[in-house]
Order: sequence, then structure tokens, then C-alpha cells
Amino acid sequence: MMERKDSLRQKLLSATDTTRVKVRFNDTDTMGVVHFKNYMIYFDDGFVSFMNSIKNKRNIEEMIHEGLACGVKHVDITYEGSAIFGDYVIVKTRIKDIGNKSITFIHELSKESDNTLLAKVEAVRFVLNLKTNKLMNIMDFLNYFLK
Amino acid sequence: MMERKDSLRQKLLSATDTTRVKVRFNDTDTMGVVHFKNYMIYFDDGFVSFMNSIKNKRNIEEMIHEGLACGVKHVDITYEGSAIFGDYVIVKTRIKDIGNKSITFIHELSKESDNTLLAKVEAVRFVLNLKTNKLMNIMDFLNYFLK
Amino acid sequence: MMERKDSLRQKLLSATDTTRVKVRFNDTDTMGVVHFKNYMIYFDDGFVSFMNSIKNKRNIEEMIHEGLACGVKHVDITYEGSAIFGDYVIVKTRIKDIGNKSITFIHELSKESDNTLLAKVEAVRFVLNLKTNKLMNIMDFLNYFLK
Amino acid sequence: MMERKDSLRQKLLSATDTTRVKVRFNDTDTMGVVHFKNYMIYFDDGFVSFMNSIKNKRNIEEMIHEGLACGVKHVDITYEGSAIFGDYVIVKTRIKDIGNKSITFIHELSKESDNTLLAKVEAVRFVLNLKTNKLMNIMDFLNYFLK
Repeated sequence: MMERKDSLRQKLLSATDTTRVKVRFNDTDTMGVVHFKNYMIYFDDGFVSFMNSIKNKRNIEEMIHEGLACGVKHVDITYEGSAIFGDYVIVKTRIKDIGNKSITFIHELSKESDNTLLAKVEAVRFVLNLKTNKLMNIMDFLNYFLK
Repeated sequence: MMERKDSLRQKLLSATDTTRVKVRFNDTDTMGVVHFKNYMIYFDDGFVSFMNSIKNKRNIEEMIHEGLACGVKHVDITYEGSAIFGDYVIVKTRIKDIGNKSITFIHELSKESDNTLLAKVEAVRFVLNLKTNKLMNIMDFLNYFLK
Repeated sequence: MMERKDSLRQKLLSATDTTRVKVRFNDTDTMGVVHFKNYMIYFDDGFVSFMNSIKNKRNIEEMIHEGLACGVKHVDITYEGSAIFGDYVIVKTRIKDIGNKSITFIHELSKESDNTLLAKVEAVRFVLNLKTNKLMNIMDFLNYFLK
Repeated sequence: MMERKDSLRQKLLSATDTTRVKVRFNDTDTMGVVHFKNYMIYFDDGFVSFMNSIKNKRNIEEMIHEGLACGVKHVDITYEGSAIFGDYVIVKTRIKDIGNKSITFIHELSKESDNTLLAKVEAVRFVLNLKTNKLMNIMDFLNYFLK
């Protein structure tokens, strides 16, 4: 059992996902570039895409409707470039660390057209069981999600 | 009873409210003006402000937590001007019509600095009882809200 | 010349486009459904997709960077259903009318999973020449865009 | 001169500002709480409010229209609680550090009703001169802004 969990952990830690987000006109501001808050939307797309790249039968989107909410505890984001209307943003996602009650993701956002780095993100997430209002053990959640 | 309802109806139809919304940097787009979708945020502030101007003990914000949701059925919005970062938008709100299952609001949005008209809005709202999943009679809702 | 313009007009009036938008978690509100303002984002995606379905060499996104801004003058939106996190929204777009200084689009938004109608939209747009600050003749704009 | 700059620096480093932001319905998500990206909107309000608390004649909002853009280079945000529709968020802002080309702000967000801590933010900002496309020296910018 521990062996299986450990191999799952290793598998997850080596998984990577890449998704593509189109910049909308309303993502930009008076500067003509994407407003800094909207990179949060983009890397959240990366989280959803990553989870669905490792999924089994059910999508991560269904978890919330089952009463399991993936919240965000901490975000560290460094802005390196800027994107404009019409750009496509490439979001590369991987897991940095799986703790007991938290899981840390690394997202790297770049511009598709010229590979310019846009932002580097470290985001710590947790899973809340809405029925018990308690944090769920991350490996328990992942085992449940991947069932 | 009918008399009381009628006098409430008349009172509501003659009520007006004015609120003030500050344009945020992220409300603007590459054009340097407020993106058209954000006027929906501003007139929604007008709705909340209007309801709380007629309220008795409880705020309209509490209704959702009591299981009564004010949804939007129809919006007709004409854009007449544009606002920039730092502008204050004045939202004037009144009720145009109270139907059985819907209530129609009129919102007029203008720029505080020079009274320029920004947008005229007609928004039809309904009240959904989340427990029964049925539309609520509007006067019943208003009587409950104003209790 | 007039003939060519007329045939272009006819071609445009019979064109249709369908695009697909994914509902993000932050598109939803406390009700668990997409907030009414966000349908504006979705039909704006429909506009961009439509324009690029008829484009020649340049994307509609490039027009703003050439100083031609497509603004919105009027929106009439009727909400018919609601979408949740994870749904895909299908946006069908066509032109209803081409005036001198305005162009009217029809957007129909439905849920991909079960074809439920979500919203019907009529949106009147104009083209502003940012250099002259004047409205552009729509057929002139379309001829320029399609060049 | 250096003395004057140093005393300004000290004055700025000891300044604090408190502003109040109302949670809108569309700030919340399916969880019924404010979506994590929206705290970026709230602390940005704190930045604007802080700058205008130290301003002299012109508002910080006018700087962008003079060609001086305050961008964000880095954000570190820790989420400590959650707010719902109708809550008021109190944003306390101060400067942590003034570098040559960057300035670091500390924002503390709490719920007005019960003082619950919502989020702690460290945000590094820079000033871009849009005419030269170069970063501006921060004390030069502050001296210009406070003139």
C-alpha cells in the first residue's frame, strides 16, 4: 500500500502539463497589456488542465460538485513580461511538492509567439471537504480523484 | 391588505437611489476606457444600493444567505460615453415596473466629473427560492425583505 | 464596385460562426452558476471568432493595434439558462444588419452538454478610427479588414 | 538635497493607509467566498488609496495619463481567511522598502465585521516611463508625484 502510494507520488511529481490560453480584450488594461491579476486566471487554467491530464474517469471540475474544494493558500508570482490582446499564453504546470495537507504547483507562463517568459508562479493549494469543513489529506484526495 | 400592498407598490415605484462607483485600473482595457462588460458590475452596485436604500432590518446581501437569489433575466444597455481610470461613476436607480414574477429596474450611469451620460440600462430581475427552486412572487419577496 | 460591395454584404450576412468557451471557476458566483456579466465575455469571444472566420490575412485582434477599435454601442441580452464550472458554452454568431456606422450581431449561447439555450444576444458595434476619433463607415472597415 | 530626500524616504516608510472595499456578488465563486484572484483587486485599491493619502496636488490615477505607469513585478500573497458577499474588506497598506527601481508594499486585508485576517500581501512595484520605455528611479518618481 505504501509502495503504491509512493509510486503514485513519484508519478505525480514527474508529470507535466502544457495548456494554451487566449488573451481576451477585457484581460488587458489602459497600459495595453494583460492586467497583473489576470495571470491568476491563466495559471488556474493550468491547474485545471494539469489535474485533467492525470485524471482517470472524472474531471477535476466535478470534485467541487462532490463537495471537495481545491482552495489556494499561497501564491508567489514574479512577472517577467507582458502579453497583449490576441496573444496566446502557454502555461506549463508541474507539482513541486506534495505535503500532508497542501500541494505546491509550479506554473511557468510564456508567450506562444516568441517564447518570452511572462510569469513564474508557485501556488500552494489545499483540499477542503465541504461536508466536514476539514482539510483533506492530499494523497487521500489524489487517490480518490484518480480512482 | 391589498391597499397596503398597493401603497407599498406606489412607494417603491417612486423611490430613487444614487450610488457612486470608482473606476478601477483593471476595469479599463487597451482602449484606455472602461470595458463594456464592466458597466454590468456598476449597475449591479446600483441594484444593491437601491435595495438597501429601501430596506428595513436586513440588507439585500443577506437574502442570498437565506436562500433567496435575485437573478437577472434580461438586460438592455445603451452605451453613451466612456469612463477612464480614476473617474467616479454615478448610478441612479429606480423601479420601472413590478410584475408578478419579475421586476424591472432602470439605471442611469453618468460620469461624476462632468455629468456625461455613460449608459442607460433596463434590467429585468427575478427572485428564485433556492429551497423550492421556484420563482417567487415579487410583491411577496418585497414584503418579506421589508419586514 | 457597388456590385462587389453588395456581394460582400450578402456574403457577410449569410456567414455564421460557432466557437466554444470553457466556463472557468471564477466565472461562477455564490449561486454556483456563471455570473450574468460573464456572458458578455463569452459573446465577445463569439465576435472575435466570427471576425476571424471571415478574415483574410490579418486577425481582428490586430485592428486595435492599427488604431481601429471595435466598440459596443448597445447590448440586448436575454438569459435563458445557467451554466456551471466545467461546462462548455457554444457561441453561435451571425450578422443581423450592416448599417452605415454600426453593425448588429446576433449571438446564441448554449450549453454543449445538452444544447440548453443559455442566452440570446443582440449587440450593436461600431468602429472608431483612433487617429481621427471618428466613426468609420462599416463597409469601408470591412473592405479594409478583408483586404 | 540628500537630506530632503532622506527625510521624505523616512516619512514615506512610516506612512500607513487604511481603505475599505465592499465585496461584490461577482467577486464570489461557487464556493460562496471571494475568489482568490480578487484579493489582487482589493490590495490594488489599497495601493491607490495609499498613494492618494500621501499625494500633494495630483492623484496617482493621473500619473498613467501623464505616461508614468506603476507596474507590478512580484506578488507574494498568503490567504488566511475568506470573505462573502456583503462583507467589507479593510486594506491596510504601508511601504516596506524603497529600492532604486522598485518599491515594496505590504498590504494586510481583514474582514471589517470581526477583524478576521483575510490575506497578507507583499507586492513589488516599479514605475515605467512610457515615453522612454525605461524604469524610473523610485525616489525621482515620488518627488515628481509629490510636487
